Amino acid sequence: MNEERWLLPAGIEEVLPPQAQVIEGLRRELLDLYAGWGYDLVIPPFIDYLDSLLTGTGQDLDLQTFKLTDQVSGRLLGVRSDMTPQVARMDAHHLRRDVPQRLCYLGTVLRTRDDGFGGTRSPLQLGAEIYGHGGVESDIEILRLIMLTLRAAGIEESYLDLGHVGIFRGLARQAGLDAVQEHALFDALQRKAVPEVEQLIGGFGVHGAAADMLVALAELNGADALVRAEQVLSRADRPVQVALDDLRRIAEGLQRWLPEVGVHYDLAELRGYRYKTGAVFAAFVPGWGLEVARGGRYDDIGRVFGRARPAVGFSADLKELLRHGRGLEQRYRVDAPVLAPADPDPALRAEIERLRAAGRRVVEALPGVEQDPRQLGCSQILARREGQWELQAIDAE
Amino acid sequence: MNEERWLLPAGIEEVLPPQAQVIEGLRRELLDLYAGWGYDLVIPPFIDYLDSLLTGTGQDLDLQTFKLTDQVSGRLLGVRSDMTPQVARMDAHHLRRDVPQRLCYLGTVLRTRDDGFGGTRSPLQLGAEIYGHGGVESDIEILRLIMLTLRAAGIEESYLDLGHVGIFRGLARQAGLDAVQEHALFDALQRKAVPEVEQLIGGFGVHGAAADMLVALAELNGADALVRAEQVLSRADRPVQVALDDLRRIAEGLQRWLPEVGVHYDLAELRGYRYKTGAVFAAFVPGWGLEVARGGRYDDIGRVFGRARPAVGFSADLKELLRHGRGLEQRYRVDAPVLAPADPDPALRAEIERLRAAGRRVVEALPGVEQDPRQLGCSQILARREGQWELQAIDAE
Repeated sequence: MNEERWLLPAGIEEVLPPQAQVIEGLRRELLDLYAGWGYDLVIPPFIDYLDSLLTGTGQDLDLQTFKLTDQVSGRLLGVRSDMTPQVARMDAHHLRRDVPQRLCYLGTVLRTRDDGFGGTRSPLQLGAEIYGHGGVESDIEILRLIMLTLRAAGIEESYLDLGHVGIFRGLARQAGLDAVQEHALFDALQRKAVPEVEQLIGGFGVHGAAADMLVALAELNGADALVRAEQVLSRADRPVQVALDDLRRIAEGLQRWLPEVGVHYDLAELRGYRYKTGAVFAAFVPGWGLEVARGGRYDDIGRVFGRARPAVGFSADLKELLRHGRGLEQRYRVDAPVLAPADPDPALRAEIERLRAAGRRVVEALPGVEQDPRQLGCSQILARREGQWELQAIDAE
Repeated sequence: MNEERWLLPAGIEEVLPPQAQVIEGLRRELLDLYAGWGYDLVIPPFIDYLDSLLTGTGQDLDLQTFKLTDQVSGRLLGVRSDMTPQVARMDAHHLRRDVPQRLCYLGTVLRTRDDGFGGTRSPLQLGAEIYGHGGVESDIEILRLIMLTLRAAGIEESYLDLGHVGIFRGLARQAGLDAVQEHALFDALQRKAVPEVEQLIGGFGVHGAAADMLVALAELNGADALVRAEQVLSRADRPVQVALDDLRRIAEGLQRWLPEVGVHYDLAELRGYRYKTGAVFAAFVPGWGLEVARGGRYDDIGRVFGRARPAVGFSADLKELLRHGRGLEQRYRVDAPVLAPADPDPALRAEIERLRAAGRRVVEALPGVEQDPRQLGCSQILARREGQWELQAIDAE
């Protein structure tokens, strides 16, 4: 067994120095960023009754959730695979504020399987959410926070992908589709399988404007998709027009707040369709096929916890951000320590305390082992000179 | 179901604002403390192959460990219920330094059952460990770190409990006990059941000095236990004398470094007997029966991972420290935010950015909802006066 005990399960990582310090550094910077915007930190529990985890957004995560039996209650527990349902519960049940509530969180979640691209099963999920405001202004605030998050993580190039589940949902209703039909069509749309979309719509017996618009939806993507939609979806019912208007106002907000950020519209993009209720968005890094941050509007997510109100937010994996960021190792790497001799002189003790209080790292020498500061990874030593303890550089060999 | 969905499993906590910020504040302070002493941060994985978790110290934790089946490998996984075995693996397998290695960690662990006193099943475990040094100087450094940890957590009064597993282990060997006998006696000693200890020893057919000393061990506790031990254990074999000498040198170190800290000796105290190899210690807060920090020496813990070397360390639950600490709410509570109007004026944007960069919290007003800054929890507003944006206090009502 010995030679196997150090193996880790696939997609499960341990983090060694100095990388752990880089994670800690970015963690603090991001939490401070959200705090500066008025987001209050919450810490959801790592495990929860499965019922609670699989409400709202959580239903999509059933297969991704590790299950445990609780010896105390005999009930089934789940390890959180997403923190949004837990945060929604906090807003709905425990905080119960009538005014908008901004919340943020950061912590490990676990997934039974990776993302299909050999990635992690233990993302370090971070996120920020606004409860209690239904206007596009909070969507825009969240999009601004996404871009600030990427910038803080040293990601220089990125673009946004923007959609709105209300468009497809409205068209499906206008076409009179039932839930099974809607799901089949949703599936084909996600794969951008236009011939299949056409075949399905024909098979459902949908004709006329609604059929044309559903087929056209698959092609409504690109920087000019919103402009084209005005024409292409002109015969859509009011809910679709409201969704388009939302998107236009979000686009205006992005133009004002983030003029330098490229935006790609995809009106058939329906991430988290089951629980999303409005705009859906994701951030991408050029040359990397997977999104690095994602979010959207999921009004009424708190309903199962006894309180429905508007909600919008985003989440990302801090470890994934680190993979694409530049310069973080330099920014957060801790200094090489100072080596202090094992000497009880009070003047030395005072100098060590002074250095530590000033943020320096001081290692105290341990007798009987290697004493060469270079071997110990130290860059300086504390040495006595003319009765005073002072820092001395170690000559490079 | 609705009315139950907000319930949390027993012993599993969620942390709301502002308490979450207090945890975050203390978390940073402690990690910075350990970094200042030269401890490198590591992040062990949340789940691991059960084999890896239940080596060394982990064997005692089998019943406490939640088990999961890995869909990917088909093997049994465990949720970490202690991070020490994982950190030992990092030292043994991945870091492989020949010089002493100081490591620290902080994260949630899960336990299938609480501590028997209705406490948590999800401690926020923190710890620091020194690998590669077998002398009492590293035991003393860890004891100093424990006391600094308690002080950082605002715990004003505490005392240390100190023992050494080598004493009982040596006496048991001297008496010729086999493993089953040793275990039965260990069990009675932990309960300080002196008549039972006497009966067991008689039943094992042990007589003379070894028998006397094993019985006397149960009473060797208190501030003067080390002094009494010199007499009482004078006929013990060399390993016991070496252990006593270790304890005496640790006591001297404590006298020098922590003269203000009360120390209680208990030579029959054998926390973690199965994997500990030297000094064992715990910190207590007056009036609270459970230890708030614990540790000791567990040399060779890395053997199962292919590399045996000395090791000593401690661990504590940050949430438990918070329960006993004073003044942390004041120290770490975030300020009430400033409310900024939803106005695109670039001068306002610049002022908001300036405030945030200076560490202030600024909430941007969202249209269509409550605008009263008091209701929004804000203490100041940004308002225009004579063409300039400035902070204005909100009059108390």
